[in-house]
Amino acid sequence: MSNKINASVAIQVLPNTCENKEVVRIVDKVIEYIKSKNLEMVVGPFETTIEGDYDELMNIVKMCQIIAVEAGAESVMSYVKINYKPRGEILTIEEKIKKYIQ
Amino acid sequence: MSNKINASVAIQVLPNTCENKEVVRIVDKVIEYIKSKNLEMVVGPFETTIEGDYDELMNIVKMCQIIAVEAGAESVMSYVKINYKPRGEILTIEEKIKKYIQ
Amino acid sequence: MSNKINASVAIQVLPNTCENKEVVRIVDKVIEYIKSKNLEMVVGPFETTIEGDYDELMNIVKMCQIIAVEAGAESVMSYVKINYKPRGEILTIEEKIKKYIQ
Amino acid sequence: MSNKINASVAIQVLPNTCENKEVVRIVDKVIEYIKSKNLEMVVGPFETTIEGDYDELMNIVKMCQIIAVEAGAESVMSYVKINYKPRGEILTIEEKIKKYIQ
Repeated sequence: MSNKINASVAIQVLPNTCENKEVVRIVDKVIEYIKSKNLEMVVGPFETTIEGDYDELMNIVKMCQIIAVEAGAESVMSYVKINYKPRGEILTIEEKIKKYIQ
Repeated sequence: MSNKINASVAIQVLPNTCENKEVVRIVDKVIEYIKSKNLEMVVGPFETTIEGDYDELMNIVKMCQIIAVEAGAESVMSYVKINYKPRGEILTIEEKIKKYIQ
Repeated sequence: MSNKINASVAIQVLPNTCENKEVVRIVDKVIEYIKSKNLEMVVGPFETTIEGDYDELMNIVKMCQIIAVEAGAESVMSYVKINYKPRGEILTIEEKIKKYIQ
Repeated sequence: MSNKINASVAIQVLPNTCENKEVVRIVDKVIEYIKSKNLEMVVGPFETTIEGDYDELMNIVKMCQIIAVEAGAESVMSYVKINYKPRGEILTIEEKIKKYIQ
């Protein structure tokens, strides 16, 4: 695992299932998976953000939908933001929100 | 100001300006504006989330682009998520992320 | 209705209902509403795009969720892109996609 | 290349460069790349949609940011929608928009 930070992504996974409780359960499974990657991470109300090496992040993005289906979703709609800057520094999670954390 | 919570929105404002510092300055002005509304609010790396009454939230969403232009952006690209549930309770910001805040 | 084109928006409305047929029916009602506004409009696979005066567009965006709920959705998740340029010309729908329409 | 249709994705690539002409040039390069994959494809005002096999689509999504940087963008912000349904049929591009194409 490279410790380059050339990208950050934010992902919202919407499992297609009728019950709210099921949505929360499946989303928690996806967040648990993301957490297992030990990257700088922020869980927000509508999306989870991670930063790190572009290749690794895009693999995680790809897996999130698979994890949601394995956890019981019949299908998935996901919304992803990708910030990629191969040369130089992206604005890190900390730089973006440090001043706003009470 | 009604204290109904029938909606939550998340907004990312991308001011169209060349310098990173200008982007941060303008985005901070928009966040300051949102903060002045005294709603439950979370500033995330890629979007700011608020919850409350649908009418009020949609007015705030509309103003965000105007505030960004007034702060110096020549034009703006914004990305908005809207969750609206007029009857019953939406999943609140606290319910969604309480378990994930260290 | 002003014929200024200082903004364009793209909206995807996801009604929260279990049956695919219901999703399509409700989304069609929202598109019908947008169509009734007689603006330059493109219905895409994941979002409907319109261009025109900013105030008018933001009012339409606000109504879309209300229309979806009136059509039977218990709640709605919507995803909106907003491009706003009060001075000068935004890139119009035609300029963006004319070269790609077979 | 598998002709399974278990997913569809829509992508908007925003190259970080100051001049509008450069934005259009770089976005056209990304669309050209997507077109070279010979999938069912719709270019919309704010996003390009393709459908096909999930693995192949996610590889294309990953490449889009790399293509934009190779075409001259210093950094990229991209917005991606992913619909994934491994069992059964997703709603195809044609089913979604056929009734709306004049």
